[in-house]
Amino acid sequence: MSAGRDARPLVVAAAQMGPIALSETRAQCVARLLEMLREAAAAGCRLVVFPELCLTTFFPRWWIEDEAELDAFFETEMPGKETRVLFEEAARLGVGFYLGYAELAVEDGEKRRYNTSILVDPTGRIVGRYRKVHLPGHADHRPARAFQHLEKKYFRPGNLGFPVWRSMDANLGMCICNDRRWPETYRVMALRSVEMVLLGYNTPNDHTGHAEIDDLSNFHNQLAMQAGAYQNATWVVGTAKCGTEEGSHLIGQSMIVAPSGEVAAMATTLEDEVVRARCDLDLARIYRETYFNFAAHREPGQYGPITAQKGAVGPTGQG
Amino acid sequence: MSAGRDARPLVVAAAQMGPIALSETRAQCVARLLEMLREAAAAGCRLVVFPELCLTTFFPRWWIEDEAELDAFFETEMPGKETRVLFEEAARLGVGFYLGYAELAVEDGEKRRYNTSILVDPTGRIVGRYRKVHLPGHADHRPARAFQHLEKKYFRPGNLGFPVWRSMDANLGMCICNDRRWPETYRVMALRSVEMVLLGYNTPNDHTGHAEIDDLSNFHNQLAMQAGAYQNATWVVGTAKCGTEEGSHLIGQSMIVAPSGEVAAMATTLEDEVVRARCDLDLARIYRETYFNFAAHREPGQYGPITAQKGAVGPTGQG
Repeated sequence: MSAGRDARPLVVAAAQMGPIALSETRAQCVARLLEMLREAAAAGCRLVVFPELCLTTFFPRWWIEDEAELDAFFETEMPGKETRVLFEEAARLGVGFYLGYAELAVEDGEKRRYNTSILVDPTGRIVGRYRKVHLPGHADHRPARAFQHLEKKYFRPGNLGFPVWRSMDANLGMCICNDRRWPETYRVMALRSVEMVLLGYNTPNDHTGHAEIDDLSNFHNQLAMQAGAYQNATWVVGTAKCGTEEGSHLIGQSMIVAPSGEVAAMATTLEDEVVRARCDLDLARIYRETYFNFAAHREPGQYGPITAQKGAVGPTGQG
Repeated sequence: MSAGRDARPLVVAAAQMGPIALSETRAQCVARLLEMLREAAAAGCRLVVFPELCLTTFFPRWWIEDEAELDAFFETEMPGKETRVLFEEAARLGVGFYLGYAELAVEDGEKRRYNTSILVDPTGRIVGRYRKVHLPGHADHRPARAFQHLEKKYFRPGNLGFPVWRSMDANLGMCICNDRRWPETYRVMALRSVEMVLLGYNTPNDHTGHAEIDDLSNFHNQLAMQAGAYQNATWVVGTAKCGTEEGSHLIGQSMIVAPSGEVAAMATTLEDEVVRARCDLDLARIYRETYFNFAAHREPGQYGPITAQKGAVGPTGQG
């Protein structure tokens, strides 16, 4: 059904980062990103996916009351002074990229914080912006925890939906970290014909307070992305920031997943590492035209509660 | 978080069937079900999940024009003459069950066909009925195929939604075969607090016309059920009819999947086989109260297309 091997290739890289220390500067982080960008370009990649919040350490692990201290983790412009070189080098190399960062925006005259990613095309132009919809964690201070997970305090839920952009001759979508566990994330993009979902993550495996969950962190990471790819006939590129960062351990296993659900490539370290795959975007067609022909097989009339409800209600069946 | 080991156990069996020949009678099929029912009861099971369409061979593989010939594969009452003994024996043993069969109903004075399952409680009472929502295959005759897949011809899409019933001290839901590949299936039930999803399947791995898909049939079977379980914090019990049936090969690997996504038990034959697991229904709580606390983390305002659209549209992003 596909027009032969490699009918519509997009060569892509997941550019995984090892830990970022609190003391590391933006310039130091960008230098690490630049090195991986060049490695990916040399390996023929046209698109590089960097992690979530990849310009600083993962600060939601700390309770921060001082606003200036918090602001220091956020970007007020993109590209900014320290990140501009990344845009310039990518344009010079003809490589597009996904970059995750903490965004400080002013909307309706109000300071607002988002966990954001951008899609930059190979000319260095920002073609898409996404703000994380599914914020995990909590908003209150929980001193009993070794590490906080304060995304619900520091960020607002994304207000840009799950758009899909046409760029690099592909339909590209974005999401961030916890979004990848939610089937709705992929489905909304698939309903907009996404062909490749780009995502970065910071996933600690030492802080839920449940060893049963923590021990399965790598398995759940893989399961969620493989299912998202298969059930939506899309490539998924997931990139970690990983390793032991300020005492907290983050999982690795950055991966590129095919529309079959198969893992095409996976990182094997917990350090800066470029994983590359040649992705045939047409590989999805055999799934879209059979099992996952949405127009033929979906039954949205039966899906009402998915959009009508937020939380769960009790059983509704009649005996 | 769980109230200790095995806080709220439900011992369940997946009662897998090997092939059913066209020549096999209802009575012969029921005799096989009875034998597995007794084995499961002896192993302490309180609930047994039988396959989809488990009273006849998988007839949608053939183009059938004669209405009487087609009708012969359908049940007009449940329990009926040949199936009553199963209800009686289950009640005697104090075991509930899920049974899949072809249902011929008369609704609005019209003959209607559904791919149906029922939930029978340990007293022998039918407490729930489900009609398959996601019908795979095609409605037209495709003579070039070795086997047809005519579910879209022989059945109407289910019109009962995805209810969840309280029975056997558990919130139980049902779906059938292809439903398990669709994340919406599990999600609707999870929004109704399902704790265990029961499903039967007949899944050929030799007829999509795409070797790339057929070769991954077992992987996809497992991936879909593991993701459904994990993303919805529910047990999933999937039971196959399997083996080479009238020349068509059906996959096995009936399995019981925990809310962690882990496979708690899996069949290892392609024959009649009872797989058993002691399922702690409270195991789901650590997921429902953290990652998958729907009330805290879902964002239905961003899921609109899931219920507003059936098929996919083009990319919507703005540059």
